[in-house]
Amino acid sequence: MTAPDHGARAPRSGSTRRQFLLGGAVAGVGAAAAVGADTALNAAAQEAPPAPPHGEQTVPFHGQHQAGIDTPAQAHGFFVALDLHDTTDRADLTRMMRILTDDAARLTQGAPALADSEPELAASPARLTVTFGFGPRFVERAGGTRPDWLGPLPEFGIDRLEPGLGDGDLLLQVAADDPLTVAHASRMLLKDTRSFASVRWTQQGFRRAHGTVAPGTTMRNLFGQVDGTTNPAPGTADFDRVVWATGGWLAGGTGMVVRRIHMNLDKWDGLDRGGREQSVGRYLAGGAPLTGTDEFDEPDFEATTAIGFPVIPEFSHLRRARSENPDERIFRRAYNYDDGGAGAEVSDAGLIFVSFQADVDRQFVPLQRRLDQLDLLNEWTVPIGSAVFAIPPGCREGGFIGESLLT
Amino acid sequence: MTAPDHGARAPRSGSTRRQFLLGGAVAGVGAAAAVGADTALNAAAQEAPPAPPHGEQTVPFHGQHQAGIDTPAQAHGFFVALDLHDTTDRADLTRMMRILTDDAARLTQGAPALADSEPELAASPARLTVTFGFGPRFVERAGGTRPDWLGPLPEFGIDRLEPGLGDGDLLLQVAADDPLTVAHASRMLLKDTRSFASVRWTQQGFRRAHGTVAPGTTMRNLFGQVDGTTNPAPGTADFDRVVWATGGWLAGGTGMVVRRIHMNLDKWDGLDRGGREQSVGRYLAGGAPLTGTDEFDEPDFEATTAIGFPVIPEFSHLRRARSENPDERIFRRAYNYDDGGAGAEVSDAGLIFVSFQADVDRQFVPLQRRLDQLDLLNEWTVPIGSAVFAIPPGCREGGFIGESLLT
Ligand code: HEM
Ligand code: HEM
Repeated sequence: MTAPDHGARAPRSGSTRRQFLLGGAVAGVGAAAAVGADTALNAAAQEAPPAPPHGEQTVPFHGQHQAGIDTPAQAHGFFVALDLHDTTDRADLTRMMRILTDDAARLTQGAPALADSEPELAASPARLTVTFGFGPRFVERAGGTRPDWLGPLPEFGIDRLEPGLGDGDLLLQVAADDPLTVAHASRMLLKDTRSFASVRWTQQGFRRAHGTVAPGTTMRNLFGQVDGTTNPAPGTADFDRVVWATGGWLAGGTGMVVRRIHMNLDKWDGLDRGGREQSVGRYLAGGAPLTGTDEFDEPDFEATTAIGFPVIPEFSHLRRARSENPDERIFRRAYNYDDGGAGAEVSDAGLIFVSFQADVDRQFVPLQRRLDQLDLLNEWTVPIGSAVFAIPPGCREGGFIGESLLT
Repeated sequence: MTAPDHGARAPRSGSTRRQFLLGGAVAGVGAAAAVGADTALNAAAQEAPPAPPHGEQTVPFHGQHQAGIDTPAQAHGFFVALDLHDTTDRADLTRMMRILTDDAARLTQGAPALADSEPELAASPARLTVTFGFGPRFVERAGGTRPDWLGPLPEFGIDRLEPGLGDGDLLLQVAADDPLTVAHASRMLLKDTRSFASVRWTQQGFRRAHGTVAPGTTMRNLFGQVDGTTNPAPGTADFDRVVWATGGWLAGGTGMVVRRIHMNLDKWDGLDRGGREQSVGRYLAGGAPLTGTDEFDEPDFEATTAIGFPVIPEFSHLRRARSENPDERIFRRAYNYDDGGAGAEVSDAGLIFVSFQADVDRQFVPLQRRLDQLDLLNEWTVPIGSAVFAIPPGCREGGFIGESLLT
């Protein structure tokens, strides 16, 4: 129930109606300028025919890989894990994945699902992607070979896992730049799972809204940290090597880890700025390593202070999370969560840690083990949910997600 | 943890990096054009200096009225109700409201709160507004005159109220176009309430993201309905008359009703499109009344079908929600909620119904009573939470929200 725009309390930067209407365009100009493309833009703004609002932007569904992995992360991510009904057999799995693939192929392109009950809500895809993942039981029921790493992670000392927030047979990651789009798409998909599975857990995550900051800005988490700086870059050989699996039915797919990590913001507040920066090894202001000035400067792990201590502490997350072993690398694509406070608790917040890697045991586990042993961040963070999924490859038009396993 | 933009799976409408960077601007152009301002825009785009991303847009905090009421609704709304500690007295209330006012005045303008623990998260206000409301106990503790209508609503037959979702002594409505901004601002504010009050309930709501559809587009709710068409227009004498209270400490303030209304989407799906349109009296496609073609056409309540039935049914929400009595009008500013499904439930979703009106008893209650008696929509909706607050007027720089009550 919205008020049409009557210019009341219009933003300060647009105090007349005309300026208000221009807000979006002007913001876009600023964004582009901020990354140094203003000249190109000025030319383009004069040539370019009026184009649709960003709700109409689509990400291709079909392809070698599923979308939602190398896709620049959207503002909203909804994660749902389902348990298969006991009666769901291999033929059912095929049937279900055919239906879900059809739904996703339509919805991501801005078209209603078949028998969409609210087709109007499908019209604004806003870069919607739907990514499917299979738990161990799904693969077993399908009669496929289970990757060695597909199953619960080893126990870590820092974990306080709640079973209701972990594991699952089928995962849906539904992400878009518009929360209404995510709500509608999730619901259309979940309706079609109903004969085959039931919801085990759901998690809702967010990053900054589309267009509030310059494109390409690394996200911040709720500790205020720049989070995601050191990450393989989609489209590079390095990314391909870290992320995509090569053998068997999983070729072109990947492994996914989803860990809900509670962040104790109140306790974090007790730490001074210097302490916070030491705990990660990076500055809060711009995310530069403590030995540098720019976010993307290489950290200098040898540098020492005047009195001989390492500038980037031994116990810092940055040092602990970086391995000498080039195999122990992952691609992170996390979301913030904030479920609001209750009673004296001012917040129930944290990170939906999501990483993609071809081999969870070889790449993720040693890294998590090292952080388990020592990582100052552990003082303020607690993993409360954990799940691992095999992400099958993408499919061509007419195919379906999971076909290499199910056919 | 985000991947910097490397152009991978960039939106179809921008397959080169340069085009991708221009996405925001181009979307803005489209949005403006869609409301008929393309000529003005083309001129402006050539003149306008690069301006900042929309995250930097601010809504003035100080003024006769609090912001967040006549402000065009932002994409994200967070509602928190608090219970005062038993020990919180009048002097404490003053102290608390001074602190909260200071926080809100800073945060809404993109500045960190005093002693902000994550100042970087304050830098992108994205039209942040913070609106404060007082429950009956707050007003009593302050020693003020309680408006007759300030207290629980009368019981309605349709209600299935859960106490944990209703009432409260102090309300905060925190709204912005960016979910990270809302999370940060809410937390800074709630931290400063801790010595005085504890959280009773929180509700998180959303509408379409900023810029996904043309500005001024009426929102849709999760039934897919265009929701908010008939609403007093901010900035008009009509709006002022419906919304702003005139007498006593509340002059320049208003009354606020917050009702959490569960919407049974599964049951709604069982109804065909014709039935849905009849239940409201408007078309789903564009929101036009069943007797018209355009969203803003006046409904013709006299029109009958060939066989003599009213075209807009007697039991339709549109007819039941419209009173002959010009006093029985409200200003609606609702948000959708969707807390995800569990087990066989595919969704737990609905509307955070929010209305502002000068006098809740005279304007809201008769309307809700009429809907309670007969409204086909009741078949699919159930009020599960209900609260009423007095929204004090705004304040000038140096003043504080609630000063007309507390000084
Ligand atoms: C709530 C929990 C966590 C927080 C707040 C957090 C935060 C951060 C921050 C601020 C950085 C530095 C900026 C960047 O490069 O992204 C970072 C880097 C990193 N984090 Fe985390 N992280 C968390 C959990 C984890 C977990 C569970 C893992 C893997 C097991 C992980 C792996 C990494 C890696 C690989 C890097 C890059 C290190 C490098 O520079 O080589 N993080 N994290
Ligand atoms: C989940 C519950 C509700 C839904 C889904 C809903 C939906 C709608 C829709 C689709 C319209 C027509 C478009 C428009 O003018 O906005 C409408 C109109 C309206 N609704 Fe509701 N509504 C709900 C609850 C309420 C409640 C609780 C009230 C007040 C007690 C209310 C008061 C109104 C009013 C005053 C109108 C305008 C009627 C007119 O044209 O004069 N609605 N609503």
